[in-house]
Amino acid sequence: MTRFIQFYSIFFLLLTHQVASARKTSMKERKPCKRIVLYLHDTMFNGTNGFNATSATVANGTKLGNFKFGLLAVFDDPLTTDNHLLSPPVARAQGFYFYDMKTTYNSWFGYTVIFNSTKYKGTINIMGADMMDEKTRDLSVVGGTGDFFMTRGIVTFRTDTFQGFDYFRVQMDIKLFECY
Amino acid sequence: MTRFIQFYSIFFLLLTHQVASARKTSMKERKPCKRIVLYLHDTMFNGTNGFNATSATVANGTKLGNFKFGLLAVFDDPLTTDNHLLSPPVARAQGFYFYDMKTTYNSWFGYTVIFNSTKYKGTINIMGADMMDEKTRDLSVVGGTGDFFMTRGIVTFRTDTFQGFDYFRVQMDIKLFECY
Amino acid sequence: MTRFIQFYSIFFLLLTHQVASARKTSMKERKPCKRIVLYLHDTMFNGTNGFNATSATVANGTKLGNFKFGLLAVFDDPLTTDNHLLSPPVARAQGFYFYDMKTTYNSWFGYTVIFNSTKYKGTINIMGADMMDEKTRDLSVVGGTGDFFMTRGIVTFRTDTFQGFDYFRVQMDIKLFECY
Repeated sequence: MTRFIQFYSIFFLLLTHQVASARKTSMKERKPCKRIVLYLHDTMFNGTNGFNATSATVANGTKLGNFKFGLLAVFDDPLTTDNHLLSPPVARAQGFYFYDMKTTYNSWFGYTVIFNSTKYKGTINIMGADMMDEKTRDLSVVGGTGDFFMTRGIVTFRTDTFQGFDYFRVQMDIKLFECY
Repeated sequence: MTRFIQFYSIFFLLLTHQVASARKTSMKERKPCKRIVLYLHDTMFNGTNGFNATSATVANGTKLGNFKFGLLAVFDDPLTTDNHLLSPPVARAQGFYFYDMKTTYNSWFGYTVIFNSTKYKGTINIMGADMMDEKTRDLSVVGGTGDFFMTRGIVTFRTDTFQGFDYFRVQMDIKLFECY
Repeated sequence: MTRFIQFYSIFFLLLTHQVASARKTSMKERKPCKRIVLYLHDTMFNGTNGFNATSATVANGTKLGNFKFGLLAVFDDPLTTDNHLLSPPVARAQGFYFYDMKTTYNSWFGYTVIFNSTKYKGTINIMGADMMDEKTRDLSVVGGTGDFFMTRGIVTFRTDTFQGFDYFRVQMDIKLFECY
């Protein structure tokens, strides 16, 4: 009998400890429950490339500094799994960004990743600062719908290439830490 | 005695199973902890209807495509519990939307639902893509304050009617899955 | 033996009650896991104050009402721990706001607080309505990165002072309720 009680006592301790610490576990050390790496291709409209363009300037930059402070662009950019512009898009990113520093190029994004494939249906909503001078920078995944219902996490941006203001390509490493 | 131990063993299994699966439970099958259905009425300012208008174009659409790509509007729209424009508003929606596709009308919203009634005081913050061609589409509830402190969930949009660019009405089915 | 069973029975009840109520506990009564009070200084660009300005108008207000409805500003504002404009900034706030009421001044913010000091590295993402007529008003913390990985909470705004449209200072009381 005593053994049984000892067994249960230990079991209890383990169990309660687990319950108590569940929310304290550092998520930084946790592995994402889902990870999706995609390349975003942004081709700016210049007045004549309407067939290829996927992004357009909605408000011009101001005269505050020399880095297009305030320039606002709206985009509907294809997302591919590799860094080739002409690879078949697996999702789209729809939203906006604007430049917001007077001493360097720096931007801010609010957008939705829209999946409508056999693999995934649903959306992931993202916002945050894109500190373009940093090699990598993190934005927040603040919600999702469909297959990404209620998700949260971070997206790591890494500039892959850019051609002046005509085209840029960013690697988006989407790490989700809440999956339902 | 043995019966007691058997009883507790089963109890344990049930309990630990519950703890372990608590966060895995599909929220898709879960019922919202709160659900609020409201109709948003957006009356666009045309220069002469200042008394009735609740929305205004801040930046015009670009020439990318024929669907007002980039047009940015700011709004302070009344929300009613039925689909009558003149019903007493129970809340307001303040925020912005813009059009973002070159092949069809499609938009993106960032806004706050503001309650200040005897029933509710507080705000619900929402963002996401409004794929207007879909019969229904989901945006994310990313946070809240007051009676909606820290809430999360989704909002299902359903276009109820529209009159060109003068007026549109959307049914917003707000489903909250985190209530505190 | 009976005593042991009694002991465990009570223990069980306590434990299960705790598990069951864990998510129901009112967060309103909970203390933030982190609290940071900062002052935001917004100095509007007027065409000649490029050295000091930290904010610029990207789209002018419309003629809907007399309260700059639709005026859109982008900012990169310093954040200080006291209310002196010239105190050393401990972080920056990068984002946008716009005015959105025709009967009073009222605005809406989407922005990122960026820390890059010895104390904190990381970002906090915020959005919500700024009902400027209220003595205090709450916006949502919808996500974070780095030291603020996956955080959530609210930010209470309190207008500290303003000088027409040239300068305003807001106390931001950041209360985080999810810390990892």
